[in-house]
Amino acid sequence: MRFQVAVCGPGSCTEQERLHAHRVGGLLAERGAIVLCGGGGGVMAAAAEGARSRGGLVVGIRPDLDRAAAPDALSAVVFTGMGEARNAAIVASADAVISVGGSWGTLSEIALAGRRGEIPVVCLTGWRVTDQTGNPVPGPVHAATPEEAVSMVLTGRFV
Amino acid sequence: MRFQVAVCGPGSCTEQERLHAHRVGGLLAERGAIVLCGGGGGVMAAAAEGARSRGGLVVGIRPDLDRAAAPDALSAVVFTGMGEARNAAIVASADAVISVGGSWGTLSEIALAGRRGEIPVVCLTGWRVTDQTGNPVPGPVHAATPEEAVSMVLTGRFV
Amino acid sequence: MRFQVAVCGPGSCTEQERLHAHRVGGLLAERGAIVLCGGGGGVMAAAAEGARSRGGLVVGIRPDLDRAAAPDALSAVVFTGMGEARNAAIVASADAVISVGGSWGTLSEIALAGRRGEIPVVCLTGWRVTDQTGNPVPGPVHAATPEEAVSMVLTGRFV
Amino acid sequence: MRFQVAVCGPGSCTEQERLHAHRVGGLLAERGAIVLCGGGGGVMAAAAEGARSRGGLVVGIRPDLDRAAAPDALSAVVFTGMGEARNAAIVASADAVISVGGSWGTLSEIALAGRRGEIPVVCLTGWRVTDQTGNPVPGPVHAATPEEAVSMVLTGRFV
Repeated sequence: MRFQVAVCGPGSCTEQERLHAHRVGGLLAERGAIVLCGGGGGVMAAAAEGARSRGGLVVGIRPDLDRAAAPDALSAVVFTGMGEARNAAIVASADAVISVGGSWGTLSEIALAGRRGEIPVVCLTGWRVTDQTGNPVPGPVHAATPEEAVSMVLTGRFV
Repeated sequence: MRFQVAVCGPGSCTEQERLHAHRVGGLLAERGAIVLCGGGGGVMAAAAEGARSRGGLVVGIRPDLDRAAAPDALSAVVFTGMGEARNAAIVASADAVISVGGSWGTLSEIALAGRRGEIPVVCLTGWRVTDQTGNPVPGPVHAATPEEAVSMVLTGRFV
Repeated sequence: MRFQVAVCGPGSCTEQERLHAHRVGGLLAERGAIVLCGGGGGVMAAAAEGARSRGGLVVGIRPDLDRAAAPDALSAVVFTGMGEARNAAIVASADAVISVGGSWGTLSEIALAGRRGEIPVVCLTGWRVTDQTGNPVPGPVHAATPEEAVSMVLTGRFV
Repeated sequence: MRFQVAVCGPGSCTEQERLHAHRVGGLLAERGAIVLCGGGGGVMAAAAEGARSRGGLVVGIRPDLDRAAAPDALSAVVFTGMGEARNAAIVASADAVISVGGSWGTLSEIALAGRRGEIPVVCLTGWRVTDQTGNPVPGPVHAATPEEAVSMVLTGRFV
């Protein structure tokens, strides 16, 4: 089975986040990893487009049944019809998670990945989680660039 | 988006069902359709192998998180961790359903497809559903061969 | 934990089915069982009303988030937002299943219960499942009256 | 329909969190609200016990099918068998969310509630979410005591 990396992020994002997600998708595809995403716009569509532009395989896992809303760049689409519960399926399917940008939906995926606890979770920009005293909670790590994020999840792997 | 056909059937099947599923997968791939399946053995693995032998794309949608149990022939795998609730995601993702053989799990997928009611559902062998007087319930249709089953779901389409 | 019985059936039903479901709900409540249902109209609402009329506890497990559509007779409501995938949660939660009437959604629940295979499944009226030669598939049993159906799932139990 | 409040928190918690959860459950029950929880130990069990000690109704929504693991204090249990995807069902079912303590699973529920955005979300102790500059992200509010938390979600309501 090929290595599967979930790229998570808001459906509505900044231009910087869009560029980051596109680059992350492209780098993952170049390294032979499958890209999983939520099958929506913004970061999700950008990661899909980046991966497809490098010949990658992208599976979108959508919350609804809306065929028209699925970006063209997806290789295949799972229409779960399960709402935000599909976030759990994205995370459970991934061998690693890269998040780009911050939103409550994105945070739910980071948290579910932290809950699972077996896979690398790398946040490129986005929100921070601390305990009550302001110290970062161990788990997800932060990257400054798409290259660093992809390197962190693929280090030591020949995918 | 490419046409997506779910091939459903028991994880433990007869040799005849295995051959049927393999042929269905191959025919779908030749026609350019994506194959979706439950990501298990038996009919699911045979359909995946048939599709891959013709260069097709196959997405397995598993009930659990068991990496080792996913057949090699799957192009990508969604590990839902949602048990049999994943049957609903398989059906919701499909533009058509072909079942091969009979089992309770398979019947649940046929029933969910009948409930959805918008897509062709073709049963190749397998169980029968009747009302209390023994008359077939309208909805799923029966096919005698893999060729007929695939033709029924792709008729009129240029996929 | 109290014994939990799922009462499954179409949201649109005949008057006879409505009466049957109401009686089933009432009998279950009298025997101390919790009633689970899909939280919709028809058979689901009738079972809930029957149970509440006898002081029973009823949990509705809905496919959507629609507060206004939940019958008043439900003691509590789980809004899954997961579409028909919620059928799997209803069946997984039940210590026994009684179906009243036939529909594709109802059949999906019977099939999921047959797939699970550990609990009694009793069909009061409704559809029939046979193999290709017309023989009934082992698993669910049929009852002629609400009393018989309830007796079959509670036999030997002091709930 | 009665007001339903989800009480979320780690299955393994401190004594202080256990006391807080018990008190939150009791206060909600006294005010007539139904308590929803994840049906596990720690904060979940404590909230259930607190509510039952005041005659409340508690529905546990578990990730698995494990009957033996469900606390006695639950009035009814939904065994979803859907793993952490059940967090989405808990949040979707709630008219308000109170979290006690911090964990990745708990954070996923807070995030899903923030994503939903229509209901009050109150955090009693637990983790903090900030943007990249360290400013709190708007959405969930923090309470210092069980009384304050319950008051915040019930303010203006006659439940």
